[in-house]
Amino acid sequence: MAVLNMSLENPVFTCYLTYICILTLKMMLMSILTGMQRKKHQVLASPEDAKLSPGKNFKKSHEDVDRVRRAHLNDLENIPIFMAVGYVYAMTNPSLTTAAMLFRIYTAARCIHTYVYAIHVVPQPARGIAWGIGFLIAGYMAVASICHFAQF
Amino acid sequence: MAVLNMSLENPVFTCYLTYICILTLKMMLMSILTGMQRKKHQVLASPEDAKLSPGKNFKKSHEDVDRVRRAHLNDLENIPIFMAVGYVYAMTNPSLTTAAMLFRIYTAARCIHTYVYAIHVVPQPARGIAWGIGFLIAGYMAVASICHFAQF
Amino acid sequence: MAVLNMSLENPVFTCYLTYICILTLKMMLMSILTGMQRKKHQVLASPEDAKLSPGKNFKKSHEDVDRVRRAHLNDLENIPIFMAVGYVYAMTNPSLTTAAMLFRIYTAARCIHTYVYAIHVVPQPARGIAWGIGFLIAGYMAVASICHFAQF
Repeated sequence: MAVLNMSLENPVFTCYLTYICILTLKMMLMSILTGMQRKKHQVLASPEDAKLSPGKNFKKSHEDVDRVRRAHLNDLENIPIFMAVGYVYAMTNPSLTTAAMLFRIYTAARCIHTYVYAIHVVPQPARGIAWGIGFLIAGYMAVASICHFAQF
Repeated sequence: MAVLNMSLENPVFTCYLTYICILTLKMMLMSILTGMQRKKHQVLASPEDAKLSPGKNFKKSHEDVDRVRRAHLNDLENIPIFMAVGYVYAMTNPSLTTAAMLFRIYTAARCIHTYVYAIHVVPQPARGIAWGIGFLIAGYMAVASICHFAQF
Repeated sequence: MAVLNMSLENPVFTCYLTYICILTLKMMLMSILTGMQRKKHQVLASPEDAKLSPGKNFKKSHEDVDRVRRAHLNDLENIPIFMAVGYVYAMTNPSLTTAAMLFRIYTAARCIHTYVYAIHVVPQPARGIAWGIGFLIAGYMAVASICHFAQF
């Protein structure tokens, strides 16, 4: 039944909606993390911010700030398209068990990616694996959805 | 009634759809603004663009171009996740008054953020406040939605 | 009938869903392309990645890597908001012929943009035209949708 797919009586859809919110909060955390690293290492986001703490010596950049920003950019490259493709995937009538597991693993993989990239640096391939798991899940959802709808 | 939430008879949902379009146009404006600043200060986006205006001396970068790009990147970090979380929030049956007010304030805050960051630079904390208002609204929507659906 | 707009019996909506998935795969390709260029030119994404291939001399940056990243960033600036505004546009009851054509041209334009920007560099205005077509379609969808819903 078509309408069920995106009604709030469809548990796959409400599960999707929950994880969208968790991923949003996770990405918002990156902004706070950036701000904390900027403050710690006295790196300005923009020249006019110097007036907020007069008399200090500001640096142009710092590896820890760049690191958080790289992790944030990687989120921007991956999470918004996952949110979009996850929506489509939730319409394809997957089983709740499969869908919920994919949403959970994706969210965990992205949190681990941020942790090993920007919070406590762990040698590779930790970051590569965390990124790859998220990448494969998004790719699977896209291909499975195209096969399901396929209206070009 | 579940189906109403995302039907076009739900005024909260059509209000959400309207603001999505306004925010899209606002973000598209950033591309135009970047182009204008690039032209004004003769900063190329990519080396092959030099052929479009032969005989000119191009610079590697200029603070005004970087400024617009920072504002644009800040939009990319904030607005797409707001669009996603706003969708979820619109499903939680909020009152039209509250929802419309949040969408309006968010959109205004983001426009002010761009204005004080990239068009007419205003000393801090103007930009910080504009960013913070948008941040708090997105955070509120995420938390309120998780409490409403909470299916992990 | 309002509910039809976003039901899976609406061919405009399933067509939209299909193109979302294609655009997602297209953007995911940018990550792979970046990785390939990084490997080819031995440019690290982050210092700790040096341990993955010990004994090599790594460079700080390379024009081919930067080029793919610029193309990727341009995708991030354009495609997520197109996905959002395309959703709204699909709700406005457009004819299937028009909507499918717009989705198709947009997707083709973005693929051409990536090709002439990051794969086989073609002199301007090739990239400008490809970008402009996508930009105009997104702008048209936003304005047409605002006129249709207009609930501020």
